[in-house]
Amino acid sequence: MMDFDTILITGAAGRLGTELRRGLAPLARKLRLTDRVALNDLQPNEEAVICDLDDADAIMKLAEGVDVILHFGGEPLEVSWERILRSNIQGSYNIYEAARKNGVKRVIYASSVHAIGYHELESHIDADAPHRPDSFYGLSKCFVEDLGRLYWDKFGIETVALRIFSSFPEPADRRMLWSWLSFDDCVRLVSAALTAPRVGFTVSFGMSDNCVSPVDNSKASHLGYQPQDNTESYRAAVESRTKRSDPYAPATRYLGGWFVDIGHPDDEVKS
Amino acid sequence: MMDFDTILITGAAGRLGTELRRGLAPLARKLRLTDRVALNDLQPNEEAVICDLDDADAIMKLAEGVDVILHFGGEPLEVSWERILRSNIQGSYNIYEAARKNGVKRVIYASSVHAIGYHELESHIDADAPHRPDSFYGLSKCFVEDLGRLYWDKFGIETVALRIFSSFPEPADRRMLWSWLSFDDCVRLVSAALTAPRVGFTVSFGMSDNCVSPVDNSKASHLGYQPQDNTESYRAAVESRTKRSDPYAPATRYLGGWFVDIGHPDDEVKS
Amino acid sequence: MMDFDTILITGAAGRLGTELRRGLAPLARKLRLTDRVALNDLQPNEEAVICDLDDADAIMKLAEGVDVILHFGGEPLEVSWERILRSNIQGSYNIYEAARKNGVKRVIYASSVHAIGYHELESHIDADAPHRPDSFYGLSKCFVEDLGRLYWDKFGIETVALRIFSSFPEPADRRMLWSWLSFDDCVRLVSAALTAPRVGFTVSFGMSDNCVSPVDNSKASHLGYQPQDNTESYRAAVESRTKRSDPYAPATRYLGGWFVDIGHPDDEVKS
Amino acid sequence: MMDFDTILITGAAGRLGTELRRGLAPLARKLRLTDRVALNDLQPNEEAVICDLDDADAIMKLAEGVDVILHFGGEPLEVSWERILRSNIQGSYNIYEAARKNGVKRVIYASSVHAIGYHELESHIDADAPHRPDSFYGLSKCFVEDLGRLYWDKFGIETVALRIFSSFPEPADRRMLWSWLSFDDCVRLVSAALTAPRVGFTVSFGMSDNCVSPVDNSKASHLGYQPQDNTESYRAAVESRTKRSDPYAPATRYLGGWFVDIGHPDDEVKS
Amino acid sequence: MMDFDTILITGAAGRLGTELRRGLAPLARKLRLTDRVALNDLQPNEEAVICDLDDADAIMKLAEGVDVILHFGGEPLEVSWERILRSNIQGSYNIYEAARKNGVKRVIYASSVHAIGYHELESHIDADAPHRPDSFYGLSKCFVEDLGRLYWDKFGIETVALRIFSSFPEPADRRMLWSWLSFDDCVRLVSAALTAPRVGFTVSFGMSDNCVSPVDNSKASHLGYQPQDNTESYRAAVESRTKRSDPYAPATRYLGGWFVDIGHPDDEVKS
Amino acid sequence: MMDFDTILITGAAGRLGTELRRGLAPLARKLRLTDRVALNDLQPNEEAVICDLDDADAIMKLAEGVDVILHFGGEPLEVSWERILRSNIQGSYNIYEAARKNGVKRVIYASSVHAIGYHELESHIDADAPHRPDSFYGLSKCFVEDLGRLYWDKFGIETVALRIFSSFPEPADRRMLWSWLSFDDCVRLVSAALTAPRVGFTVSFGMSDNCVSPVDNSKASHLGYQPQDNTESYRAAVESRTKRSDPYAPATRYLGGWFVDIGHPDDEVKS
Repeated sequence: MMDFDTILITGAAGRLGTELRRGLAPLARKLRLTDRVALNDLQPNEEAVICDLDDADAIMKLAEGVDVILHFGGEPLEVSWERILRSNIQGSYNIYEAARKNGVKRVIYASSVHAIGYHELESHIDADAPHRPDSFYGLSKCFVEDLGRLYWDKFGIETVALRIFSSFPEPADRRMLWSWLSFDDCVRLVSAALTAPRVGFTVSFGMSDNCVSPVDNSKASHLGYQPQDNTESYRAAVESRTKRSDPYAPATRYLGGWFVDIGHPDDEVKS
Repeated sequence: MMDFDTILITGAAGRLGTELRRGLAPLARKLRLTDRVALNDLQPNEEAVICDLDDADAIMKLAEGVDVILHFGGEPLEVSWERILRSNIQGSYNIYEAARKNGVKRVIYASSVHAIGYHELESHIDADAPHRPDSFYGLSKCFVEDLGRLYWDKFGIETVALRIFSSFPEPADRRMLWSWLSFDDCVRLVSAALTAPRVGFTVSFGMSDNCVSPVDNSKASHLGYQPQDNTESYRAAVESRTKRSDPYAPATRYLGGWFVDIGHPDDEVKS
Repeated sequence: MMDFDTILITGAAGRLGTELRRGLAPLARKLRLTDRVALNDLQPNEEAVICDLDDADAIMKLAEGVDVILHFGGEPLEVSWERILRSNIQGSYNIYEAARKNGVKRVIYASSVHAIGYHELESHIDADAPHRPDSFYGLSKCFVEDLGRLYWDKFGIETVALRIFSSFPEPADRRMLWSWLSFDDCVRLVSAALTAPRVGFTVSFGMSDNCVSPVDNSKASHLGYQPQDNTESYRAAVESRTKRSDPYAPATRYLGGWFVDIGHPDDEVKS
Repeated sequence: MMDFDTILITGAAGRLGTELRRGLAPLARKLRLTDRVALNDLQPNEEAVICDLDDADAIMKLAEGVDVILHFGGEPLEVSWERILRSNIQGSYNIYEAARKNGVKRVIYASSVHAIGYHELESHIDADAPHRPDSFYGLSKCFVEDLGRLYWDKFGIETVALRIFSSFPEPADRRMLWSWLSFDDCVRLVSAALTAPRVGFTVSFGMSDNCVSPVDNSKASHLGYQPQDNTESYRAAVESRTKRSDPYAPATRYLGGWFVDIGHPDDEVKS
Repeated sequence: MMDFDTILITGAAGRLGTELRRGLAPLARKLRLTDRVALNDLQPNEEAVICDLDDADAIMKLAEGVDVILHFGGEPLEVSWERILRSNIQGSYNIYEAARKNGVKRVIYASSVHAIGYHELESHIDADAPHRPDSFYGLSKCFVEDLGRLYWDKFGIETVALRIFSSFPEPADRRMLWSWLSFDDCVRLVSAALTAPRVGFTVSFGMSDNCVSPVDNSKASHLGYQPQDNTESYRAAVESRTKRSDPYAPATRYLGGWFVDIGHPDDEVKS
Repeated sequence: MMDFDTILITGAAGRLGTELRRGLAPLARKLRLTDRVALNDLQPNEEAVICDLDDADAIMKLAEGVDVILHFGGEPLEVSWERILRSNIQGSYNIYEAARKNGVKRVIYASSVHAIGYHELESHIDADAPHRPDSFYGLSKCFVEDLGRLYWDKFGIETVALRIFSSFPEPADRRMLWSWLSFDDCVRLVSAALTAPRVGFTVSFGMSDNCVSPVDNSKASHLGYQPQDNTESYRAAVESRTKRSDPYAPATRYLGGWFVDIGHPDDEVKS
């Protein structure tokens, strides 16, 4: 169903942004794309603008006439606090302000497992578990979730925060045997978030239908996400080329994986 | 398995009653049917009695020799308080008294989503959530659930209260894309309620296996209901002829749908 | 603080109604009293009307100009279904309709432990536990709670349902050593329900500050009820004249006490 | 994946031990088997030692060079307290001590539904529900679960306690229509417990994917157990040769089935 | 109230046994005392028998004519597994068997914080939290709790398991500023467990009314225990002679305190 | 007890900072004070530095040799996003970095009810409820709570986040009759947070012991905060000079009070 006129995608040149361009084309008349780097292979239904997320005026203009924003831009992993602050905190504020002033009704946000990375696998958290970021990157995801909560409660803009686990072409290590989100399932998840009749402020975990499943996504069951992929066909290959996880290692124990082992990014930068 | 001798079905001429006549025939030697209107196409395994639910003597007689009662009769939607009181409250009391005095051991009751219609989709309630009726119709469903609870705790008569969402030939609007219960799944649900080894007092939601699934039916997992249908094959058609739901509208926000928008039925009647 | 102009009290001639007349006088300019029997010792701030709760017209008239209704009328214990239906179900419907049509904003309802009488002491329920009535009397209390819920969700009339345990001059038996609500605490509880800034639909248990305390009233903590009495000064006397409870007896096991041992009231009546 | 060098199986001559020998052969270079009776048909990848579990020195020696212990030995049903104490309590202590002193990192323990047999079907417990053993046999299962907990918290040895319901060639009665664990699913469950990246101390229920499913196994979802069998193909035959369960019977009401009806084993022995 | 004829106290020569002799004298006509060492200062209302708990015949005889058993005997701290097995496991089995065969209706058992010693202070557990023993001593407490559960569910003997934290003449270190149970409060707690109208199987934590209170005892509120003491008057002295706790130390982090730092008792014995 | 050498207080010139200077003097040898405005009446045990929180170098220097930081500085109410970002977000980051690099072990943070201001009174949240900020001010409080969580999980710095409700000389309006925190109780709360043996990352609500108490602070019970004040002595005066709250108004319904009615601060600024 082409229920939407214009969808804005931030981070459109990124790994997931590229998949969304392909997968969501049938849902809207036009995809407006933005990134800080150039976008390739523009299609007839696409238009592109290169700009930084912390350029408030450019972002404000981008949101004109938009139905829904898919906010997948910003720093995609642990970098210095200064860059996190500028791209992920100030940048996301700019997005929500642009949504508010342009009457955009819904934002789909690429949050991350790293917003709750210090919960243990055995604790089987659901979407109401408190934030436990595992990095400054994860901390910025927590911030944007709370920002989305505020804009729903106060300004009536709906948000779906998708806590994506590991979305890659295929599972690359033993952890991804449980944390993997296939690209097709990622598109299914975003589509569900777009088309669900009402979301208010909803948090959904983003994983494929893998056997090992240490979180409980039932609080997002009103989205209608039905994953179709899983990692079983990759298991033999992954297990043959990697060794068993150490059950005592923090990177095995906590949802966030090796992010819990990263030190302060500014220490690294300075040394 | 023909485990039952006689099953009594109230409201047998109604939309669901007709489906139950067809679907449950293999489970019992005889189906005794009742309604306030005439019943068509009586089969050899069926016998029919026309009477009102508030006719206590007639109801008492109907329950003689009965194993299980499927209580699907009464007013099926919002009408005046007086009619609700007579058919749904007094009428259901008559049914339970007839069960008690005739030694009927189990009642399957057609409760409704409207008993909990003022809970929000995002609250993902389960069967233990407090009643929040959305109408006088829903209020009568709450009453009969509590009546069933009392008859189990005090008199040892088991009840399964089936909170049916939207059981129609096919999903007719966007809300039914999540709330629909196919007729075949309705028969499966009633069969499960009939054959479960022990139910005590059990509440089960009644929906097909739809993608969007805003309630948690795990507290009824001892019934063994396994829905086989869903709304995906109807989705394109429904979406093409209807527009997107307004996420701010109460009829989208609350489980009860447009019932929350109905005023007091007696106001309408009088105006 | 005399925050209220006119408070209507139903069941004003009853045991608790008499206490409320005394205790709440400072809160309102006028107390309008009603009962089906005559009221004694009318004070200058009181006016009285004798009528039955199932007289809809009389009730409608009673609610004119009223700020708050304290609905303490109706059958106060197990009687025949017919009388329960007339006084407690139809009668309470009349009260809420009178509130709705006269713009009364809040109802304080004398519900009862018997609405949840089949829960066990050891289960430590709170206000969200499902109804488990122990009698037709208790069933009518469940009905009126649901009625209040509907009138809040749909018509914006606030309700506080007070599940009163055992409000008597003093604890009369071993069960009352935990279930007793002193008359002074009963007045405190109703005052809190009257003056709380917002109640929406609130359920509160009604007991004094007794040592043994098998239910959890924290979900009513926004009322501000602070009991001042307890049963310790009565303990020695009660224990000396009664024998130890039988821990296996249903009347000890369940919150409802001996109500769980009552059979169907109509069986008794007829025999 | 042959991730393991040596796996020790206790109770290897038993019903389930025999299945594990077959099913787990692909996972380890060597299976070391023990039982108090002789083992048949030893395969090239197997070695066998006959000894009693209460022979601490023999058990200590058995665990040398072992990666994982599958502890399926001990009394498999209700016997005298003396035998339970010796085989299941002292015997399991010997196993854990042998694991500790030999550096074994993980134990998979055959616990049982009888550790929680006095919970009701309708209470839908999960793995955190308190122990409620239904027999001295079940009591010993509780003990070993707590022993495993201690060895994880204090000595860093992981345990998966599998609460096996009814693992037989096929469902033999109406209760097994919900409680059955097929032998193939039993092997799947143990494989999952062996290969899960981290288990700490995990409790998992052990049932096939049966329609009626009265417990919630979500707290073990990090194991990755995916049952493939269910009882539907056996239903007609079982139902035709057995009569409907009595819903009032304790053996129907409680998870433990007929174990709840067994008296004290020593009373039987002595009479 | 002298509601009891004969109360049997095991471990009567111990620290708490001595307090119970004094404090409970008013509740029974006779106190029967037992310990493995001699008892001093026998009072006219007391009778004493010296025996070991693992002497089944002696224990059976002790329970003749007894109303209630206060089981405070057995090893009071971490010792070898062999002694734990003999005194605390076999010994407690003997007590429950003696209760069963002599018709004793209630057992009050001195369980311990060490049954749940590996839960963290910040997790604020209540009585339903799973066992997490911190020692073999604690493991035996878990066993006896489960034994009591079985004897209630199966044989109808009530148990109150009191998880005593630190009952000493006064708080001796910083941990006891929160974990202390005064002797007077200990007597109050046992009295409540004795006189509560119904206990079934109840677990209660045992602490005085200290400011810092890291566990939730609400599930025992039907006992009626009201502590009267707290540690504030000892705080200045304790703090002046001890240094601040290390918040990172396991003995600070876990409820069990320094018990979590004890290794395997048999390792110590052997070295 | 003078357990601390140097305590750093930010926002020391503010309303609460002034109270802390007075109240905490006995706990430390030296109080180091900072604010962006001048500090009056310096005492012999005090030293003062004027600086902005976003001056990272100055803040780093301030934390040298400090045991504990009481972080009460930053914007104390709703102002422009730019100021919130600079003082409350960047400023708090500077504080935690200064703590990390200087080995400060604990931070007590003045969070606020406005971090959870959009929860309703009737929902009776506890400390684990998700963030629902009611303003950009509240959003910054959420951010700093998550920052504290990260610094505990990753860098081992403990935090107590105190969600202060309304700390003023006396309750000024009807809402403060439940939300008030007296200055003396504020000092008690901070003292408890300072002296608790272990806090990890703890959230505590901050209110006096008022009758109406719509949140559940039990998850902070390991701090040992015992409020001594309440609003009853102010009630008559407040009620006589203010009118009853409107139960339908958002400012009555939500914990955040009138903050929920504030629009976007930048809209105000620009108009």
